[in-house]
Amino acid sequence: MRNTSRRVVVVGTGFVGTSIAYAMVNQGITNELVLIDVNQDKAQGEALDLLDGIAWARENVKIWSGTYADCKEADVVVITAGANQKPGQTRLELVDINAKIMREIVQSVMATGFDGCLVIAANPVDVLTYVAWQTSNLPYSRVIGTGTTLDTTRFRKELALKLNIDPRSVHGYIIGEHGDSEVAVWSHTTVGAKPILELVVNNQYLTVDDLDEIAEKVKNAAYEIIDRKQATYYGIGLSTARIVKAILNNEQAILPVSAYLDGEYNQRDIFTGVPAIVNQNGVREIIELRIDPKEKLQFQASVDQLRQVLASVKS
Amino acid sequence: MRNTSRRVVVVGTGFVGTSIAYAMVNQGITNELVLIDVNQDKAQGEALDLLDGIAWARENVKIWSGTYADCKEADVVVITAGANQKPGQTRLELVDINAKIMREIVQSVMATGFDGCLVIAANPVDVLTYVAWQTSNLPYSRVIGTGTTLDTTRFRKELALKLNIDPRSVHGYIIGEHGDSEVAVWSHTTVGAKPILELVVNNQYLTVDDLDEIAEKVKNAAYEIIDRKQATYYGIGLSTARIVKAILNNEQAILPVSAYLDGEYNQRDIFTGVPAIVNQNGVREIIELRIDPKEKLQFQASVDQLRQVLASVKS
Amino acid sequence: MRNTSRRVVVVGTGFVGTSIAYAMVNQGITNELVLIDVNQDKAQGEALDLLDGIAWARENVKIWSGTYADCKEADVVVITAGANQKPGQTRLELVDINAKIMREIVQSVMATGFDGCLVIAANPVDVLTYVAWQTSNLPYSRVIGTGTTLDTTRFRKELALKLNIDPRSVHGYIIGEHGDSEVAVWSHTTVGAKPILELVVNNQYLTVDDLDEIAEKVKNAAYEIIDRKQATYYGIGLSTARIVKAILNNEQAILPVSAYLDGEYNQRDIFTGVPAIVNQNGVREIIELRIDPKEKLQFQASVDQLRQVLASVKS
Amino acid sequence: MRNTSRRVVVVGTGFVGTSIAYAMVNQGITNELVLIDVNQDKAQGEALDLLDGIAWARENVKIWSGTYADCKEADVVVITAGANQKPGQTRLELVDINAKIMREIVQSVMATGFDGCLVIAANPVDVLTYVAWQTSNLPYSRVIGTGTTLDTTRFRKELALKLNIDPRSVHGYIIGEHGDSEVAVWSHTTVGAKPILELVVNNQYLTVDDLDEIAEKVKNAAYEIIDRKQATYYGIGLSTARIVKAILNNEQAILPVSAYLDGEYNQRDIFTGVPAIVNQNGVREIIELRIDPKEKLQFQASVDQLRQVLASVKS
Repeated sequence: MRNTSRRVVVVGTGFVGTSIAYAMVNQGITNELVLIDVNQDKAQGEALDLLDGIAWARENVKIWSGTYADCKEADVVVITAGANQKPGQTRLELVDINAKIMREIVQSVMATGFDGCLVIAANPVDVLTYVAWQTSNLPYSRVIGTGTTLDTTRFRKELALKLNIDPRSVHGYIIGEHGDSEVAVWSHTTVGAKPILELVVNNQYLTVDDLDEIAEKVKNAAYEIIDRKQATYYGIGLSTARIVKAILNNEQAILPVSAYLDGEYNQRDIFTGVPAIVNQNGVREIIELRIDPKEKLQFQASVDQLRQVLASVKS
Repeated sequence: MRNTSRRVVVVGTGFVGTSIAYAMVNQGITNELVLIDVNQDKAQGEALDLLDGIAWARENVKIWSGTYADCKEADVVVITAGANQKPGQTRLELVDINAKIMREIVQSVMATGFDGCLVIAANPVDVLTYVAWQTSNLPYSRVIGTGTTLDTTRFRKELALKLNIDPRSVHGYIIGEHGDSEVAVWSHTTVGAKPILELVVNNQYLTVDDLDEIAEKVKNAAYEIIDRKQATYYGIGLSTARIVKAILNNEQAILPVSAYLDGEYNQRDIFTGVPAIVNQNGVREIIELRIDPKEKLQFQASVDQLRQVLASVKS
Repeated sequence: MRNTSRRVVVVGTGFVGTSIAYAMVNQGITNELVLIDVNQDKAQGEALDLLDGIAWARENVKIWSGTYADCKEADVVVITAGANQKPGQTRLELVDINAKIMREIVQSVMATGFDGCLVIAANPVDVLTYVAWQTSNLPYSRVIGTGTTLDTTRFRKELALKLNIDPRSVHGYIIGEHGDSEVAVWSHTTVGAKPILELVVNNQYLTVDDLDEIAEKVKNAAYEIIDRKQATYYGIGLSTARIVKAILNNEQAILPVSAYLDGEYNQRDIFTGVPAIVNQNGVREIIELRIDPKEKLQFQASVDQLRQVLASVKS
Repeated sequence: MRNTSRRVVVVGTGFVGTSIAYAMVNQGITNELVLIDVNQDKAQGEALDLLDGIAWARENVKIWSGTYADCKEADVVVITAGANQKPGQTRLELVDINAKIMREIVQSVMATGFDGCLVIAANPVDVLTYVAWQTSNLPYSRVIGTGTTLDTTRFRKELALKLNIDPRSVHGYIIGEHGDSEVAVWSHTTVGAKPILELVVNNQYLTVDDLDEIAEKVKNAAYEIIDRKQATYYGIGLSTARIVKAILNNEQAILPVSAYLDGEYNQRDIFTGVPAIVNQNGVREIIELRIDPKEKLQFQASVDQLRQVLASVKS
């Protein structure tokens, strides 16, 4: 008899990990949720706190603090472990310590015979997704970074606020590094199917001059939040839960995850944020947009930036 | 034209306040959400972080950090502000400082002409709900403490775990003080309509000896979690979101909130956790259970305990 | 790699079958939905109509009109096929023709190697569930009739309307035959944990005299609706979708399904409506309530009634 | 105190009306639902059937069969009444009889002092929306036809099926008449932000030759379904529920509703399907796309077609 349960393991129970877990409980995305942390007490406390509200939740979710052994039967393992971004620190500066942590975790996960999808939500995410893939020996389609999903929702939100429109009616992507070199794909951004570059003509809410400002704001969103609350986690919580749902429901949804490029966008052997079709096997296919020349240059620069960091990590 | 928007203001953006807000965003409970904090930067950071994920949420929710002026048009104001429970500290020890904070907040809310329901989620909740009511001059039905909603979901969860049953199929309440004197109403606890006191006869998972242990575990749940993660907020987040939903949807649902007793359970002039019908006007009616003699004594002791604390606060 | 998709096949695309399917699409209960009907055109038309709205649905659901071959990989097969209840006709009169149809369908389903749960939503449901079980050679736990789930929600609704309370805060069951001999278990009915027999004392909305009237109304609900719209399907649609969700999410929820009695309630070798724990393997366990003497007599009469019909079908 | 309830009245309890109602119950879109029909028995039967499942629904919804007096406090009145499209009959042929019915209903609704939004879901929808607006004396923004919402989800679904992609990741609209002259806006159709006209280059699933076939299939979808099940209602049920949700939640979502053109797309004094921002006041603004010359001609022809029919109705 087929097992219809869906099990998600979240490794790392800092604010990001628990915000992903809490979003999944609130939305009823999965029915088995396991928390793992090197600090087992912390994982246990978080599992208890999450489970405490379950009688008022929409769906019954089994939640427990576990061990890597629980990954054997998991459909998705979300890895959030890693040092957090500190005020003033760039995402890339975190790389060395977090790559080491990532390797250890992925080895522990794979040692159980895990055969599902890895979702990486630790920074620098594009680099760590590469590291996770290399360590895992999984096909690259099964290793997915949160990529620019958070940047993309920030982007849509900023446009939505300016235009007073539902952010879900704004379509467009941030691609490239989840970080300072990320690229707003203005050439393919639409609002209710109307290209943004047409929309700004004679628009009372939004002018072409606002666009650069918006891209800048998106890029700096994390810093702005960290200045005010020392960390960011709700936005990434919703974004990561969205990816997990697409996998578990075999949605074939298009999401700007960090995916392995094998020729698309003229790049190879790199993970970075691009729109991709996500299903129960992970990334099925990358959507290659004919981005404009300026965006191409920016994307190339973003990937170059990633390669540099990756080179230091690989060696 | 009627305004169909529902506005919830959350005052206090500590972990409890933001966990309530995040639950509401994930569940799509309201479509306008305002965060207020004395630390305006904190409120702003939290609003930004919540809003950042909105393009991936189920529903479009307007979220902003506001001022008390935003309470004028609010349907529900949730007050979470107050010092947190520290490890080793009882809930009642927090009372003086938090009563003062509560009065100031409620005065600020009411000064705007607010005409909705107040939901109090700060500890000691029963005492602070009384303080909020007194300060507000609202009818007592419109002031609702989270009461024993969290204790009740913990109680159902513990039984559910023992029996391997959906917690939503376990019915029963914790009543009285949200704190050490709370009362498990075993006499009215059922699992699939079967009284728990019958169910434990010859049950392989649960014996009558387990019941006291479960009540004790529920009582100490917060301490256990605080030991491990320094605070509790997800359980109360789900519980408070549940209450707000019952109000906004005029559900007439029965929830164990902190409600004003006016003769029910032989008590007057006190707020404490009892099952009550919650609708868009707040607490419509208290369900008075014929609790057994032992439970009556425990409930009296719990109320006495609350009266002592309340006396010190009133003076 | 585990397959996280959940496939539900609905056999029979009359109003009941399609109302179940439409409820599942609206609620996002499954992500693969197959419709089968002897009238393949009808099944195709229904699948097209359901799929037509999918871009506005909450979740992406694959929907197609299929053949029995699609049952091989199904987790749940819901069988709704059968002649409908006509005005004036009792449910039991439908039995012979529908038993024959049921056997043919179950044979076709099982021939594919189907290894999930069968949910029977055709009348007389208790008898046809028995027939389906016998034909299937599945363990009886894997064959589930909708039983008194519909009668139970009608019962809770009637009490809820009288008391102006959320029906989800009313707990209690109708047990026995889904039909004229069904039994309202007043002895175990509670509203917010308060026994209904206590609640009616001095209640302004509900008196003890109302109770019989309510039970009668529940019993006749189908006739009342059929008089007005020639059929009933939305109530059973929501009820059946609820059962399927409990299976797919491995909820361990307690629902009054038609389950096989093997000594419980002093009955053997019969399927009838009783509260039971439902999980991904079907009925895990029956909750045996200590119903009162009058209810016992009624239940015995109800089962006797079923046995008579069953005898004629078996021979 | 603000009333947080949201009331939706559905006039006409044929399959379309009840499918809209059932979708709203399943999704928990509103908390007060009233059904009205000239055949009061029918309305009562439908309300009973819908309410019968409520104890298993996600949200508590009050449902009753009512009278026009219930419109006074309604936020949205959905009008579905009218003769149905028969096999072989075009939508426009229904016009005369349905215009008369529409006028009578709108007069009855407005006589109560109704001050919300009218949603028209009867065919020919663009013409009847005009008739409803004229009769109502409401600002045109408050009168909304279902327009091409159904055609648009059919369009996205067809592309999604071809490409095996989540239909919610396909963006694009059908505009113009909800009927044979409708226009597929290929020039503004994207899949994951990629223009469909680029995507078909070297695509294994979809070629440029498929596009016309898809547009044709969308246009004929109703006929195909009517051939097989004599009516279509689930697709329109989901589409209409989507519009109502956008109104009640003040979403500012962009949906291809039938809206009043006042210069947009070079048209005046006509209602037809165009992407428009929908909020609690109805249609806030029309999104005017720079459609290509061929689409412009088609759109003009579609509007011309509508004007002819409208002329006959106006006189």
